[in-house]
Amino acid sequence: MRTAFYISDGTAITSEVFGHALLSLFPLEFEHQTISFVETIDKALEAKATINRACARSGEPALVFHTFVNNEIRAVIDSCDGIIYNFLEHFVSPLEAQLGITAKPIAHRTHCIHENSYDHRIDAVNFALANDDGSVITNYEDADIILVGVSRSGKTPSSLYLALQYGIKAANYPFTDDDMEELSLPHFLKAHKKKLFGLTIDAKRLIDIRENRLSHSKYSSARQCRLEVREVEKLYKKEKIPFINTTKFSVEEISAKILNKTGLQRYKY
Amino acid sequence: MRTAFYISDGTAITSEVFGHALLSLFPLEFEHQTISFVETIDKALEAKATINRACARSGEPALVFHTFVNNEIRAVIDSCDGIIYNFLEHFVSPLEAQLGITAKPIAHRTHCIHENSYDHRIDAVNFALANDDGSVITNYEDADIILVGVSRSGKTPSSLYLALQYGIKAANYPFTDDDMEELSLPHFLKAHKKKLFGLTIDAKRLIDIRENRLSHSKYSSARQCRLEVREVEKLYKKEKIPFINTTKFSVEEISAKILNKTGLQRYKY
Repeated sequence: MRTAFYISDGTAITSEVFGHALLSLFPLEFEHQTISFVETIDKALEAKATINRACARSGEPALVFHTFVNNEIRAVIDSCDGIIYNFLEHFVSPLEAQLGITAKPIAHRTHCIHENSYDHRIDAVNFALANDDGSVITNYEDADIILVGVSRSGKTPSSLYLALQYGIKAANYPFTDDDMEELSLPHFLKAHKKKLFGLTIDAKRLIDIRENRLSHSKYSSARQCRLEVREVEKLYKKEKIPFINTTKFSVEEISAKILNKTGLQRYKY
Repeated sequence: MRTAFYISDGTAITSEVFGHALLSLFPLEFEHQTISFVETIDKALEAKATINRACARSGEPALVFHTFVNNEIRAVIDSCDGIIYNFLEHFVSPLEAQLGITAKPIAHRTHCIHENSYDHRIDAVNFALANDDGSVITNYEDADIILVGVSRSGKTPSSLYLALQYGIKAANYPFTDDDMEELSLPHFLKAHKKKLFGLTIDAKRLIDIRENRLSHSKYSSARQCRLEVREVEKLYKKEKIPFINTTKFSVEEISAKILNKTGLQRYKY
């Protein structure tokens, strides 16, 4: 199997996203290998040897996606036996021309602690944890958004993703079995109605997820799952709470859809 | 101020990473705007109008970073008044030539729920939450890694990032004041010594963070912070636990360094 390398003098996250986006266009399997923090010539030589070994082993040149700030280190990687895909190279000159200034590459600028949004993001993670699953209902004043939905509809991972990636303070509140008789909006949520965003999920998928967690229980029964989904969707419509069905979406997609639908401002770009 | 747009028929996460990596090379401020899920010609026309308004407002062409799968929708965006940076375009042909097959773009392949790793990632998030902050010490058998360190050294956000981004099951355990007299490794950690990874932090930064959280307390006092940092670092060295100082690093960097130092295999690429 051919190996795809993602290499950088920093986290290599950008190289990974770039390479992954390209390779996902091809219905092929690859070995993936990240080599991060290649900050010295010695480390670059080591990385080059690793790439060359992979080329020799598979009999095909490895694909090397990289971003480097330092030209000497980059030159070492560029001299390997793999095929180099350097995405910065193609865009820096046209951008310099358009912006009328010269690029000033500084290592670790993309994923560093010095970006303005960093403290926001960590605060948001702490907020999401402290206000997960309805554990505390007194901080909603400080929330940017409050995700509501039945248990296992995707509230917690989405809250954490919104916090980590975008610095958005997301609380979440579960509607549980006890709420289901004549489901209505609790007063502490009603007071922050504009912040509410509903998640729902197909009953069939919900049964699967809950069976995995607590099999042969009332919680995971078809009857209960269908009841809960039906009741929350009725509530969302009655109270005009925007909502999405998460059945077919990843946390990345759920989070992006929430931003898209609410127009919520993120702190990180 | 010039506007940078990140546009896609999916989450636009790839466009954001791509555009952000390029713009971070330039010491300039930009307005940022993401337009995600542009899945129809109508939405593309709307996005185009938004871009054109931004160009007219600032008197300078907007920068438009995009990835599209559908050519007709892309053509609408390409006809806007902004400058288009289409990073897929430059790399698809050379990759096709190298791989010997034609690219088969499928919408939502990059950040979708169908990737093999998705359930791993959600399980890992649940694991990180259930095993946060030493709350449970009986699941370490199932952990891929156990982060240890003093309170506020970055354990929790790093555990969550490792889970969400890489599908790695990270537990974390805090050394607290009670442990500090003759700090030694508790037996339940000793049993999983190969999974331990230490975080440390400069006492000065730790004081700042703790002051912010609980000011004028023993917890945030210079004396206490210095003692805790000194003791855990002594322990890491004595027990040969690999560790990093997180003072100057973001969660992305901490997580990437942990992967780099441990060789831990991730589930998601």
